Amino acid sequence: MDVVAVVGAGAPSAEQEQDAYEVGRLLGTRGVTVVTGGLGGVMAAASRGASEAGGVVVGLLPGLDRAAANPWVGVAIPTGLGELRNGLIVRAADALVAVGGEYGTLSEVAFGLKAGKRVVGLRFGYDVHGVVPAASPEEAVALLLSRG
Amino acid sequence: MDVVAVVGAGAPSAEQEQDAYEVGRLLGTRGVTVVTGGLGGVMAAASRGASEAGGVVVGLLPGLDRAAANPWVGVAIPTGLGELRNGLIVRAADALVAVGGEYGTLSEVAFGLKAGKRVVGLRFGYDVHGVVPAASPEEAVALLLSRG
Amino acid sequence: MDVVAVVGAGAPSAEQEQDAYEVGRLLGTRGVTVVTGGLGGVMAAASRGASEAGGVVVGLLPGLDRAAANPWVGVAIPTGLGELRNGLIVRAADALVAVGGEYGTLSEVAFGLKAGKRVVGLRFGYDVHGVVPAASPEEAVALLLSRG
Amino acid sequence: MDVVAVVGAGAPSAEQEQDAYEVGRLLGTRGVTVVTGGLGGVMAAASRGASEAGGVVVGLLPGLDRAAANPWVGVAIPTGLGELRNGLIVRAADALVAVGGEYGTLSEVAFGLKAGKRVVGLRFGYDVHGVVPAASPEEAVALLLSRG
Repeated sequence: MDVVAVVGAGAPSAEQEQDAYEVGRLLGTRGVTVVTGGLGGVMAAASRGASEAGGVVVGLLPGLDRAAANPWVGVAIPTGLGELRNGLIVRAADALVAVGGEYGTLSEVAFGLKAGKRVVGLRFGYDVHGVVPAASPEEAVALLLSRG
Repeated sequence: MDVVAVVGAGAPSAEQEQDAYEVGRLLGTRGVTVVTGGLGGVMAAASRGASEAGGVVVGLLPGLDRAAANPWVGVAIPTGLGELRNGLIVRAADALVAVGGEYGTLSEVAFGLKAGKRVVGLRFGYDVHGVVPAASPEEAVALLLSRG
Repeated sequence: MDVVAVVGAGAPSAEQEQDAYEVGRLLGTRGVTVVTGGLGGVMAAASRGASEAGGVVVGLLPGLDRAAANPWVGVAIPTGLGELRNGLIVRAADALVAVGGEYGTLSEVAFGLKAGKRVVGLRFGYDVHGVVPAASPEEAVALLLSRG
Repeated sequence: MDVVAVVGAGAPSAEQEQDAYEVGRLLGTRGVTVVTGGLGGVMAAASRGASEAGGVVVGLLPGLDRAAANPWVGVAIPTGLGELRNGLIVRAADALVAVGGEYGTLSEVAFGLKAGKRVVGLRFGYDVHGVVPAASPEEAVALLLSRG
């Protein structure tokens, strides 16, 4: 397990933002690469956490402009695919954690489950069988990194 | 409203299959182009219904082999994008109807809602706000073709 | 051989436009589906030719707006992939003919050759080994439809 | 100028391989991120050069398996897009250098020129207007990093 995608709300609550930051930080501390959609909200918070912990942070952007990436993205990849880049985020990762989130996040969760990857939900708002619920960032990271 | 995507279970129940056939038939009768993922189950049933009614049937295939399309697809487009072609199905359509379905269908529903398109659910198994429930193929088609 | 992609100049000469029209017409007459990028120039001329001959005409558009398709496209598919849709045009076809064209066309020719598909050039401006030159629309279509 | 794509032959000559290695090394030394298709030949040689110089190396893989990346890729992104990932390589970069190469490379050069990006050719085998020829890795890197 080397790469985890952190997906979630573009406009998160303060709690979701804190959770995303903490998830990113814990992943970065453990040497896990963090992949996000590269923009704001949960994406930025997780990127900041991972970056501050010295982790590798990849942002797969929907547009063509690398400058749209949040400042904590280390490797920004403008895809120009719009929302279809959600599928690339999933393909880039071994497992996913959804922190809150709306329709875009739901598409990523669905793709992740379809691909047979572990998907952890942290305050994830949809009832989708197969999503493993976590009550805290610590538990989310433990679930993401456990095997089997 | 010219193009409707019919998405859903690859291995449907007899009831779902009948519903998909009927949705396709009603759409074809009304001159609406039907777009599906081009394979079996709900995709094939809707394609058959639309085709028998004289409608245009488009199949956006996940693989590179056009021959994988079900026999009722008139225009088969092998994309080689795997599950990412789900996003293209949504982009190709003005509105979507989900007949049953699992994770792949959920990704299409999520993309459709994200894009602000009307999404109708017919025996759709997930609780996603924004999906307009229909109790019958007739109601589904009426909802798909109503404006505003 | 069921589907041929006609690619080429977006701003063609009168001669290229006439050639593209004629290629489309001949393909449509023979019951071959014509796939293009759906916009103007060679794409529109080939679409018009095929459409007037009663053929099926598919347009794979770079943007998200189906209304951008030229009026002779029968099945317009907005992909939102930008220039990446060039690769989808190639995947959708059994063989390609390039009528003039610049960099975009060159990318399609390269993808076609890479995929091992027959690529015919009609006033194609680049020297790329593997492109089969044709001196007329009639010869181009004969080369496209010959096997082996 | 922060990101350069190095594209080229999958089965290069010894000279092309050495050139690619040197281009990668020079880019890495200058703190420029190197993007490649992540596999062997020129891709591997450039990755090795950049990696040994301490640079960031991104590999955008055609398949779904991250393990297909050559060992010098730091950030491997399996796209599952097949040859369409060539377009993503171009989008990810500010400029491109083609070291030898066949059809796949030609598609990348065409996409790069279409997008208005600087494209440098080092023993590039095709005659495409707009490609800036370089006689050595040093010249190639100088051309890639010069502005205007």
